[in-house]
Amino acid sequence: MAQALRLGIAGLGTVGVGVVKIVRRQAALLAARTGRPIEIAAVSARYAGKDRGVSLSGYDWEDDAVALARRDDVDVFVELMGGSDGPAKAATEAALAAGKDVVTANKALLAIHGQSLAEQAEAAGRVIRFEAAVAGGIPVIKALTESLAGNDITRVMGVMNGTCNYILTRMESEGLGYNALFEECAKLGYLEADPNLDVGGIDAAHKLALLAAIAFGTKPDFDAVEIEGIQRISLDDIHQAADMGYRIKLLGVAKRTPRGLEQRMQPCLVPAESPLGRLEGGTNMVVIEGDAVDRIVLHGPGAGEGPTASAVLGDICDLARGFRLPTFGQPAASLEQAQPARTGLPAPYYLRMALLDKPGALAKVAAALGDAGVSIDRMRQYGHTDTTAPVLIVTHKTTRAEIDTAVEALSRTDVLAMDPVALRIEEV
Amino acid sequence: MAQALRLGIAGLGTVGVGVVKIVRRQAALLAARTGRPIEIAAVSARYAGKDRGVSLSGYDWEDDAVALARRDDVDVFVELMGGSDGPAKAATEAALAAGKDVVTANKALLAIHGQSLAEQAEAAGRVIRFEAAVAGGIPVIKALTESLAGNDITRVMGVMNGTCNYILTRMESEGLGYNALFEECAKLGYLEADPNLDVGGIDAAHKLALLAAIAFGTKPDFDAVEIEGIQRISLDDIHQAADMGYRIKLLGVAKRTPRGLEQRMQPCLVPAESPLGRLEGGTNMVVIEGDAVDRIVLHGPGAGEGPTASAVLGDICDLARGFRLPTFGQPAASLEQAQPARTGLPAPYYLRMALLDKPGALAKVAAALGDAGVSIDRMRQYGHTDTTAPVLIVTHKTTRAEIDTAVEALSRTDVLAMDPVALRIEEV
Repeated sequence: MAQALRLGIAGLGTVGVGVVKIVRRQAALLAARTGRPIEIAAVSARYAGKDRGVSLSGYDWEDDAVALARRDDVDVFVELMGGSDGPAKAATEAALAAGKDVVTANKALLAIHGQSLAEQAEAAGRVIRFEAAVAGGIPVIKALTESLAGNDITRVMGVMNGTCNYILTRMESEGLGYNALFEECAKLGYLEADPNLDVGGIDAAHKLALLAAIAFGTKPDFDAVEIEGIQRISLDDIHQAADMGYRIKLLGVAKRTPRGLEQRMQPCLVPAESPLGRLEGGTNMVVIEGDAVDRIVLHGPGAGEGPTASAVLGDICDLARGFRLPTFGQPAASLEQAQPARTGLPAPYYLRMALLDKPGALAKVAAALGDAGVSIDRMRQYGHTDTTAPVLIVTHKTTRAEIDTAVEALSRTDVLAMDPVALRIEEV
Repeated sequence: MAQALRLGIAGLGTVGVGVVKIVRRQAALLAARTGRPIEIAAVSARYAGKDRGVSLSGYDWEDDAVALARRDDVDVFVELMGGSDGPAKAATEAALAAGKDVVTANKALLAIHGQSLAEQAEAAGRVIRFEAAVAGGIPVIKALTESLAGNDITRVMGVMNGTCNYILTRMESEGLGYNALFEECAKLGYLEADPNLDVGGIDAAHKLALLAAIAFGTKPDFDAVEIEGIQRISLDDIHQAADMGYRIKLLGVAKRTPRGLEQRMQPCLVPAESPLGRLEGGTNMVVIEGDAVDRIVLHGPGAGEGPTASAVLGDICDLARGFRLPTFGQPAASLEQAQPARTGLPAPYYLRMALLDKPGALAKVAAALGDAGVSIDRMRQYGHTDTTAPVLIVTHKTTRAEIDTAVEALSRTDVLAMDPVALRIEEV
């Protein structure tokens, strides 16, 4: 049997512990499948001595992840600390500089510094693998870079933040409001330390930026992702959407258009009967469209100890087998700088607003929309409180820019009781 | 740029033509992604001169696939002829003997001769890749052998024959009988030359045998697959199943059990609201369960020019990139000979029969079931013609052996107007 592949694991949170458990439990299986033993040389985490439910006594301990990354007895640096800067970045750079391959679950790090890290890796003859960074246990990176390598990818889209999907589907199934479910998720530990990463769409946007890079052969460009969170989605929106045969999802879409690369992560209405519309709870789903394959749909757990560790191990096994691929599927120098198409192609929009009970209010709304070039497909006024009247509008196909102009014009009128909610209706 | 990877393509049917088209159309993309040009050196097919909608004038022509496989200017032999024996087998063996890697879409060849071919490939230091052989454009082979390499796989199941799923879902949606849809499929060219390969479940069983081998590290054992086709499924079965919240699917299940390796390809009732239950038309779906990943679901086109060619190209790109893996994911010599568990674990069964209108008929049925150890959960008699009464029974959990015993006992009574239809109810 060939020489062992020796891991240095930095970060012993949920995923790190999951990786340690698999390496211990599946030693024989991993060796049979890869042709060589996979071993842990050393580990590192913020707090030593904490009980993590798995024995670490056989492994050297490093307080400093950078020191771990540089150890002579480490072949692969497994970065599971998280964070786009700080120790994760320093240790990843140190690992590459010291001639180690890197496996990471860190979407933020790669979405923001991916291009420079990929260049550094290639200069050092090393590779960075990140299956676990996008959609947990679902093998979407491998599907795009390897399985579909013969395709011109036309669109990638997906629901890639389980917490947001959990909130949105529970709003519908339990009739609970956004705030109640946000509190529940906080208690259950489903939220990132900064919850805005989840509910603000940032975490999912990091993932989308990585998918766009490998799908289209472009430099990852997180800053070009149009991001909108789910914080303003109300139970009323969920019900109105359902009434029309839609469900609201925090949907990421990356697509090449004649006006440039479209990258959007925003709550959208999708047909309730589509695979994305049917996605329940905390799972993730990614839809990939290519000129040859047509469309494949990948569905599974997007987070959690086992699924994310499974993805990390997939990458480690590839390295043990000697599979070596540039970080984003093709050499970093060959990645294009895509022109961002800031707003998507025209689509129908869902607009919900509450009008003050004044004569002529509806006429002012209609005028503001008309002036912005937004034409109305359907409008309904429903319910009614003492002072305000909820109004729901579905527009004909229009651009986000026109919608934004219309919303701005509306906000200058004196008839709105709240800022309108504007959601794209996505044909998936 | 590195040296070109030169293909010899044998078989220019739908898939072969699809591969030629992609290699021509995506030359730049393939080279950017793999770091080397991918070229066609020569092709071979049964009839030269036929118009296939793509120019072949730049490639050498071989009448004989074996000669093609042996050419000095071929690095990878791409076998797209089909058939478990004959030219496909001879040419594949010739290619391996001549030191070529092989990419194939041939499920029958590998399900039946996979073990010996894998051994031959390894002895020659060559590899055989077959992503296109199972579930067309869906990257299920790669998911199992690579992405999920850190998992102890617990169950693999799926709908892997698009024609059968097309027939079954159209029976429900159009209210058409099996025979009418069989004729329609024949006209549309959806059926294999021997339609029993499709509707008899054999094609899908070939695929299941391959999935089982890579999932469980066992020698492919097609003979051990319990196979049942969809020919006896009636519109009545479809409607009765729907009434109870189920849909009928030709479902493959491979699972390790304490009694051995279970491999079944048979029509089953699955919950209508499950991903498998919702699968419409000619697409395929594979569900993989592993101890770490929990469950992932892969869905997409299981056949057709583009999707199947996409899978072939994925394998070719892997070879161009230097990824080399034993045929079934681990060395052929390390694959176990699994003990077949001929019948699955106990499950509820759906039984439909037509009773002759005789006094005591139902009592005889109940007695035959009881004597075989099959206990009844629900029974209903419905409709009624002049002379026969349809009866539907759902049993408590029971084994296939007990059901078979009961059915045999029933057939010895004088009360049946037709052989009973017995379908497993699978909790997916």
